Amino acid sequence: MNDVLEKYERGDRRALARLISLIENEDVRSREILEKIFPRIGRAHRIGVTGPPGAGKSTLVDQMTKKFCQQKKRVGIIAVDPTSPFSGGALLGDRIRMNDLATYPDVFIRSMATRGSLGGLANRAHEVADLLDGFGMDLIIFETVGVGQSELDIVEAADTTIVVLVPESGDAIQAMKAGLMEIGDIFVINKSDRDGADRTKVEVEYAVSLGGKNRQWQPPVVQTIASTAVGVEELLNKIELHRDFQIHNDISAQKKIKRLERIVRQRVAASLEQRFWKAEQEKLLREKLKQMVDGAISPYQVSDQLIEDFFK
Amino acid sequence: MNDVLEKYERGDRRALARLISLIENEDVRSREILEKIFPRIGRAHRIGVTGPPGAGKSTLVDQMTKKFCQQKKRVGIIAVDPTSPFSGGALLGDRIRMNDLATYPDVFIRSMATRGSLGGLANRAHEVADLLDGFGMDLIIFETVGVGQSELDIVEAADTTIVVLVPESGDAIQAMKAGLMEIGDIFVINKSDRDGADRTKVEVEYAVSLGGKNRQWQPPVVQTIASTAVGVEELLNKIELHRDFQIHNDISAQKKIKRLERIVRQRVAASLEQRFWKAEQEKLLREKLKQMVDGAISPYQVSDQLIEDFFK
Repeated sequence: MNDVLEKYERGDRRALARLISLIENEDVRSREILEKIFPRIGRAHRIGVTGPPGAGKSTLVDQMTKKFCQQKKRVGIIAVDPTSPFSGGALLGDRIRMNDLATYPDVFIRSMATRGSLGGLANRAHEVADLLDGFGMDLIIFETVGVGQSELDIVEAADTTIVVLVPESGDAIQAMKAGLMEIGDIFVINKSDRDGADRTKVEVEYAVSLGGKNRQWQPPVVQTIASTAVGVEELLNKIELHRDFQIHNDISAQKKIKRLERIVRQRVAASLEQRFWKAEQEKLLREKLKQMVDGAISPYQVSDQLIEDFFK
Repeated sequence: MNDVLEKYERGDRRALARLISLIENEDVRSREILEKIFPRIGRAHRIGVTGPPGAGKSTLVDQMTKKFCQQKKRVGIIAVDPTSPFSGGALLGDRIRMNDLATYPDVFIRSMATRGSLGGLANRAHEVADLLDGFGMDLIIFETVGVGQSELDIVEAADTTIVVLVPESGDAIQAMKAGLMEIGDIFVINKSDRDGADRTKVEVEYAVSLGGKNRQWQPPVVQTIASTAVGVEELLNKIELHRDFQIHNDISAQKKIKRLERIVRQRVAASLEQRFWKAEQEKLLREKLKQMVDGAISPYQVSDQLIEDFFK
């Protein structure tokens, strides 16, 4: 393990990939790894990109990445695709991208397709981000294809959240209803060469303006055509602005505190459960199962009894 | 509270609606409500319906419901739509449905749109199902629009899971890759009047057959045209078959045990955290935050210290 960590610290990409796999698989050594790299993290800016399937998020992330590389920045991409059964072509899209960005030495892409591991996806994605952060990436981009709760948890925990919409199909209204207006720090109207792009921009700007006079940051709305990189530079400027804004208003520091707090709470919860569910408690639960099936006792009473017993 | 519960037990739909709201809002009286209704639950068959946006799930659920009503059965529908920002028209669709099925006295529909309440959606949906179950519904249908993890958690916890696909767009292959082949008990090829319906059926049947010779239940593939109710009766027959299969093979009983176990574990976890995070532990965490921000101590060490301190 120390061997791999040393290689990782020297900038060995294979060591990075290996550590990511261990974290993803919730290997027993995860704790040790995260502990060891902890002093190295906190430098990278984390960007969450979300939006409807077909909005062109992957293409946009690719173009952003290329521009970041031109600025001599190192970029880690975490493509979170928890179920993506229906997103249509995401899997193929990833493979095409790999070929394209694979030639960039300063880019590291990782797809997290996590069907099966229930819950914990948001935690895991941020642990992988920690590894990329500690590896020296300047930017980490979370890109989600799905629109479920876990995906939104991930982007919400980013420093800058970008919501990507397209001109057609009443996206703005749908996004508003879904509360996406509140999580976006920057809004992108992609495919802005299509009809209705200007109207969509106005709609989104209006929706954002409803967000409140008392919000310090007024989320900008950027029009892009990702396929030809139109507007991507402006988007990068807005990200930079948002980053500066957060640093100067002490928001970055607050977010860091929140993130650390979240880790502690999550670790405590896991640890409590681990301590609780020892052989004895499991046995007690087994014994009560029959009574519960018969309806003689409720699971609410059983959990109370187990808890009481544990703290006795 | 007793007043509302009494009315609920007498079959008052308004009391049902009120109790559902209390559960959804995680009211302090939730525990009392769930406890009280516990002896009444366990009769309903729970059906999960999932599939890509645009597969026609809502229409299919409506038609299934009408057929169930013709069989003099009472149906509760829980339309889970956690984020649905982009599903295109789901919100409107719901409203149209309300008008249509609202005339059915034996149908109760509840939409759960839960943007904001992080996690716990699957638990909450099943608690609402318990209320419908205790109210005397014969069937409870979970319909999900999103394809995120929480939505899949919900349908997986159902007695019968129906995966709805459409002929076009390589749905079968996407579903296979996403592991949906493993969660489906019945597969539906909806919109089967479209080109490629037979080919899709063959593809899905093939994919299902790969699932293993040693599985006792071979998931059937049903072609439907939900808009005109074609194939819906066959689907209901398959649901009935699957229900019988589970009863005769003791699978229903096992599922019931698992569900009860899950409730106990989830209650224990909540209770442990509640007991842990009292003023003192919160204070300790606050004190450590600065050191963590400075990188002097890791959140992993802090959680260990807090846990040690708690059990001292």
